[in-house]
Amino acid sequence: MSDQIALDLEEAQELGLKVLRANGFNEAHARSIMDVIYRCQLDDCHSHGLYRLLICVNTVRAGLVDGNESVEISEPSPASIRVDAKNGYSLLAFETGLPHLIEKTKKNGVGLMAINNCFHFSALWPEVEKLSEAGLAAMAMVPSHAWVAPSGGTKGSLGTNPLAFSWPRGEKNPYTFDFATSAIARGEIELAKRAGHPLPEGAAIDEHGKPTIDPNEALKGAMLTFGGYKGSALSTMIELMAGPMIGDLTSLASLEKDGNQGGTPLHGEVIIAFDPKLLGGTDTATNTRLAEALFASISEQGARLPSQRRYAARARNLEAGTVTIPKQLHEDILVLL
Amino acid sequence: MSDQIALDLEEAQELGLKVLRANGFNEAHARSIMDVIYRCQLDDCHSHGLYRLLICVNTVRAGLVDGNESVEISEPSPASIRVDAKNGYSLLAFETGLPHLIEKTKKNGVGLMAINNCFHFSALWPEVEKLSEAGLAAMAMVPSHAWVAPSGGTKGSLGTNPLAFSWPRGEKNPYTFDFATSAIARGEIELAKRAGHPLPEGAAIDEHGKPTIDPNEALKGAMLTFGGYKGSALSTMIELMAGPMIGDLTSLASLEKDGNQGGTPLHGEVIIAFDPKLLGGTDTATNTRLAEALFASISEQGARLPSQRRYAARARNLEAGTVTIPKQLHEDILVLL
Repeated sequence: MSDQIALDLEEAQELGLKVLRANGFNEAHARSIMDVIYRCQLDDCHSHGLYRLLICVNTVRAGLVDGNESVEISEPSPASIRVDAKNGYSLLAFETGLPHLIEKTKKNGVGLMAINNCFHFSALWPEVEKLSEAGLAAMAMVPSHAWVAPSGGTKGSLGTNPLAFSWPRGEKNPYTFDFATSAIARGEIELAKRAGHPLPEGAAIDEHGKPTIDPNEALKGAMLTFGGYKGSALSTMIELMAGPMIGDLTSLASLEKDGNQGGTPLHGEVIIAFDPKLLGGTDTATNTRLAEALFASISEQGARLPSQRRYAARARNLEAGTVTIPKQLHEDILVLL
Repeated sequence: MSDQIALDLEEAQELGLKVLRANGFNEAHARSIMDVIYRCQLDDCHSHGLYRLLICVNTVRAGLVDGNESVEISEPSPASIRVDAKNGYSLLAFETGLPHLIEKTKKNGVGLMAINNCFHFSALWPEVEKLSEAGLAAMAMVPSHAWVAPSGGTKGSLGTNPLAFSWPRGEKNPYTFDFATSAIARGEIELAKRAGHPLPEGAAIDEHGKPTIDPNEALKGAMLTFGGYKGSALSTMIELMAGPMIGDLTSLASLEKDGNQGGTPLHGEVIIAFDPKLLGGTDTATNTRLAEALFASISEQGARLPSQRRYAARARNLEAGTVTIPKQLHEDILVLL
């Protein structure tokens, strides 16, 4: 007997909305959160799918996030928009700012959205993909908590600081990536600890700054960035751009504010969008041809473009009309109603 | 007896200008090229310093670049500027566009400069540093030739694709990095080949896609990106943003246009600038404090911020009032007069 259950796509969305509504989220927050949770589940990104309902509800029940907080929009400059999430989840702020960011980018060629004072738990790819659905290229960055040591260092100064990028491909799925600038995700250390597995080499150091593959030692020490000093420099750029540049916290300041508890980080997010139609000159056909030739050159030699596993899962689940989750998770979610 | 010679700072600049003027560069091109060559030499970046005079002159003498070509400015959108280098060196295009980019960024919060149809030989850090001297943060990206295999691949699809970033720090030197997204520079393979040295592990593959440390095999095969699939994704982003997004070539198209000769690549460059004063809200003091606390956290644990070696060389050379180059190089340059 399978321990999995298949939920109709609409049923999965309705279930999530009901759970969020029943647990202190107003309609606007519930819809923006469920939209991203659903997109993740549809792509079989289980760690950011329906499972997140449990975390959202627990966080609101613990009084750490207000599910009724409204957001406030302002306009720092002609090509930028600021959305103050007022210590709520980031997703309503993103959804509220999105049409303004698209409009500003299509007018100015480049546009920037700063989200401030948000709790952030979601993947960045659904956000940059939404911009590509509007025909734009986009980058997104967030800091987190300062658990990651800089290259050559021995203790945390940087967050896991993901960078996401998306490029529109017309009717095709966009070219999209979303990766942490840490060598591994924070959650992977927790998982390895619970499973009693070692970490991969080069991912963490102990409290004395020595390389370690022991998850317990890593939790007392620090994580490392991917790609040595280059990954470390990139992560520092993300701290600056998604932090002080938009009037928000670095991962160091965010961890300090949290009293080193390691709760969901409260900070900012920056999204930068570009309109290839405005910036690319008149020969759009050549631009498209060159970009597609690059993608073909990568795929045809057997190297995979990022996100292909997600897109395959999406096609499969849309075809089936269902998403599949563990029965136990389904039961845990039903309890929240 | 030393094989080095110290040149007064003014003398070095005048020498370079004379050489360029005497070899077909008009005053505007000569000044924009020499400005960057001088900045590199002042920071002891010898590979991009006075040595480059030899390459510039040889390239013009061979008729590959026109040192008299003027540049053409246009305005694709309110927050962007385009400079067509008309198959000349990129540096005059950059200098010509710079005041417009600064003005647009200080008005719009974010600004973008596309340079098209340029030959590119210079480091990117002098460019982003100039934006930080104007109080702005900036990123710059260029493609090159498709010598770099994507992660999981066996042949070149990507350029060495450097990414540079700079963050203004008031009176202090900016936080600046400039790194290739390839694991090593193309020139390092040539140097290893001439010296008969092996390459570092993980930097290249042979023509069959197998890892190699033999520079000869690497030249027949392909280079690898830094940081595995993440570096590969980042490099692809640079292809798209500094290529088709601004109506210019990818590294694949640039190599094809060059007939696989491996000459100086002809392509585009994109520079994106941000005004932290406009984007950062009212509490500038806190923004500065948080950024500086991050830099302090990195340096105080013995990890080095990028560019510190350059800045130390700059201080030393400014104090001495000289730059030091090999006597042989000085003689080779004098011959060009």
